[in-house]
Amino acid sequence: MKQPFLKEFSPLYTDFYQLTMAEGYFLTGLFRQKAVFDLYYRKNPFQGGYLIAAGMDEAVRLLSKFRFTKSDLNYLKEHGFKQSFLNYLKTFRFGLNVQSVREGEIVFPHEPLMRIEGSILEAQLVETLLINFVHFSSLVATKASRIVQAASGRKVVEFGLRRAQGLAGIMASRAAYIGGVDGTSNVLAAKTYDLPIFGTQAHSWIQAFRNEEKSFWEYARIHKEKTVLLIDTYSTLQSGLPHLIRCLKRLRKKQIEIHGVRLDSGDLAYLSKEVRRVLDVEGFPRVQIFASGQLDEYIIESLLKQKASLNGFGVGTKLVTAYDEPALDMVYKLSEINCQPEIKISDTLSKMNEPGKKKVFRFFAKDGQFFLDGIALEHEKTPPKLIHPFNSMAHTKTKGLKAEPLFHALMKKGKVVAGKVPVREIREYAKKRLVLLPEEHKRFFYPHIYRVGVSKKLFDLKEKMILKRLGAKCFRMLLC
Amino acid sequence: MKQPFLKEFSPLYTDFYQLTMAEGYFLTGLFRQKAVFDLYYRKNPFQGGYLIAAGMDEAVRLLSKFRFTKSDLNYLKEHGFKQSFLNYLKTFRFGLNVQSVREGEIVFPHEPLMRIEGSILEAQLVETLLINFVHFSSLVATKASRIVQAASGRKVVEFGLRRAQGLAGIMASRAAYIGGVDGTSNVLAAKTYDLPIFGTQAHSWIQAFRNEEKSFWEYARIHKEKTVLLIDTYSTLQSGLPHLIRCLKRLRKKQIEIHGVRLDSGDLAYLSKEVRRVLDVEGFPRVQIFASGQLDEYIIESLLKQKASLNGFGVGTKLVTAYDEPALDMVYKLSEINCQPEIKISDTLSKMNEPGKKKVFRFFAKDGQFFLDGIALEHEKTPPKLIHPFNSMAHTKTKGLKAEPLFHALMKKGKVVAGKVPVREIREYAKKRLVLLPEEHKRFFYPHIYRVGVSKKLFDLKEKMILKRLGAKCFRMLLC
Repeated sequence: MKQPFLKEFSPLYTDFYQLTMAEGYFLTGLFRQKAVFDLYYRKNPFQGGYLIAAGMDEAVRLLSKFRFTKSDLNYLKEHGFKQSFLNYLKTFRFGLNVQSVREGEIVFPHEPLMRIEGSILEAQLVETLLINFVHFSSLVATKASRIVQAASGRKVVEFGLRRAQGLAGIMASRAAYIGGVDGTSNVLAAKTYDLPIFGTQAHSWIQAFRNEEKSFWEYARIHKEKTVLLIDTYSTLQSGLPHLIRCLKRLRKKQIEIHGVRLDSGDLAYLSKEVRRVLDVEGFPRVQIFASGQLDEYIIESLLKQKASLNGFGVGTKLVTAYDEPALDMVYKLSEINCQPEIKISDTLSKMNEPGKKKVFRFFAKDGQFFLDGIALEHEKTPPKLIHPFNSMAHTKTKGLKAEPLFHALMKKGKVVAGKVPVREIREYAKKRLVLLPEEHKRFFYPHIYRVGVSKKLFDLKEKMILKRLGAKCFRMLLC
Repeated sequence: MKQPFLKEFSPLYTDFYQLTMAEGYFLTGLFRQKAVFDLYYRKNPFQGGYLIAAGMDEAVRLLSKFRFTKSDLNYLKEHGFKQSFLNYLKTFRFGLNVQSVREGEIVFPHEPLMRIEGSILEAQLVETLLINFVHFSSLVATKASRIVQAASGRKVVEFGLRRAQGLAGIMASRAAYIGGVDGTSNVLAAKTYDLPIFGTQAHSWIQAFRNEEKSFWEYARIHKEKTVLLIDTYSTLQSGLPHLIRCLKRLRKKQIEIHGVRLDSGDLAYLSKEVRRVLDVEGFPRVQIFASGQLDEYIIESLLKQKASLNGFGVGTKLVTAYDEPALDMVYKLSEINCQPEIKISDTLSKMNEPGKKKVFRFFAKDGQFFLDGIALEHEKTPPKLIHPFNSMAHTKTKGLKAEPLFHALMKKGKVVAGKVPVREIREYAKKRLVLLPEEHKRFFYPHIYRVGVSKKLFDLKEKMILKRLGAKCFRMLLC
């Protein structure tokens, strides 16, 4: 496994204001102040009940190697940056401490997925890269998990590269696999991340032979039992299916049975049942039927409800672009500066961040299922009680519940300290964790809301800070 | 300008089936058959009336340099590809001829944007890359043009990198600029493509100082007349604005006037008017007001309708992900094989491709505006009449109209023959062409449909081929 596209990257993969602020911190002398930032999100995507966290490892490995090249520094010079700051950047290395949930972890709104600690200058500089990698990877991993859930044990292969958002296709294939699909058609991603690779045929293969049966025969002759034939080029039932059956009978004489067929158009529920019926009648009950074409979790669920006879699905556009919600509202908020907790006051209670340097716990019910998550201050022990982040009346006792810290050290002083986990293992982890999430949180719509609470110490700290900042105005806000 | 991420790319940036089909063409001896493919799309995005074509140049330059590396060949070997085919790939180079509309051209559904000619093996192999680059770049360029249109001459800056779909952010910034935005916050894209770069400040800058006025002062002291201050960190009217005014008065004593302020939350229409009023009263009529926060063409249009006092917009997520339609239905269809025209028969008339090797004309009305486009066979002269692609009764005479060929040679025998056009010039071209598109095609909803017709020769060829393939069934299809 190697890091793709790394060579062309540089710390310039950021917003311009991150650099002008960095210069500002440098010139005002503030740049060595220690800061802590939290990366988290506010609303589950796709109207669902959870997110699968992904992309943290790739992002952090990338920034551990970041250097400002001579060409980068020249570029900044041309754009008015001061020489003293550029001199500082010449030998600049990220020296961050990063705590993070594991890739493949199931996470929920409001709780930090990553905690970034370092000088205000460097911790600010990485915001754009971290959100960019983590929001998108998590979105696609989550979408994949929903599609896999809808497929109820049938095979799902990600076919999306062509209609991915350009280069995003590489990240999308990795994330989709973490989310549970069985493989990809994307060769570069499969090679880079060691993912299972799959493919069938395009209509142009059949057209190039100008003879459907011959095109089937020639493909199957080469690929034998791996063959999946596309039978909808002209007419699935009137042309593809009879040609297929003739081809299968010829192959049987050579002791070859192909893997399956693919339907890419028409009424997939009706066609799949008819193709299954004919295959069975003709003595090919093991030949599988796959479907593709604008599929997502809702269409797959509907097809199976109609008892479509399908053994697997090729899913593309809707998965790799996270079509129904192509961006996640992920944020990066300052929670401590110069060892003092910091809060961003907002008119909307739920938009206020949790102040201070924090950690996250997961509590398990007696049956081993996820029960609730808790956010506490770094120095706290496992909190015995968790409070709703904005409502002190709602709280839950955690006594006797097994607790697990969700953070692990990903980076220390700029060095990646967590071992690189093969993507196949990340996928297994996500799968195991999803099993522990109670079913009611996995409904596609109106899922039960998973609880995330805060410790009493954290609640009190936040309340105190809000009262101090807003004073009398606080009442107005709380009452409206 | 250099090609970003090139080093890590390889011809494996494709779907697996493209490679298994390539091997199939090789082993069956079909691989030297000449093929022609068309790249086109079927439906305008965002319910709009046009598309701005982009991404072709980058895609073609990339594939002109593609080589199968030793590591690529090893990977394919491990996945069962035959040695004879791998030997062929060792010295393989793309030797394609590619005709294309210019980047920045305004195009319409059904007409080819690119025509790819080469051996069936190589022309098939590039499908995934071409769709991937062109659909996404065109989508974002088009979205940008709508946002710029809504802004009615006010400044628009693309701020989207953090919530772009991962690496897609680099391509998105380039495409958004082609579509007409004034610049980007994405430093790597700006450096790579020589785009104007912009930035303001984040809330964390203000928080880091723990004193809003001081944070304004320190930033303005460094960045002087380029400064744009973010005034909504605590409360725009109760905190940001009074601190701003005090800071501006102090700066005036030093003969410094900043460029503007940014509003990132709250009711932008109301706040902008109030901030404008106070700035004017206090004697700062030249300080500009910019808005950001989940903006798109619809919100900008609504803000201006409410007479929001805004001089410019920072647009992010909705633009760089093409949020309301994150993928374009772009296709790549075989139109000629072995010098014989080819058509893909479908139950849906509009899904059938135009057969044969073709070219595209644009016809201009007497006033110089775009009038209609026509598709003709390669050997034809300018067609004197254009027919609706699926309805012979609808036709238009073109006599006396100025005609312009839309294709130019982009690649010949695998070499890029078109000069590299700076992105700033592509943007100017798109701008000029958009002016020539009549207003009724630019409405955001229910635009007038721009006509694309075919020559009589092409219409007759298609009809003949459909009749031959379908025979009596054709009537059934046409009647239903």
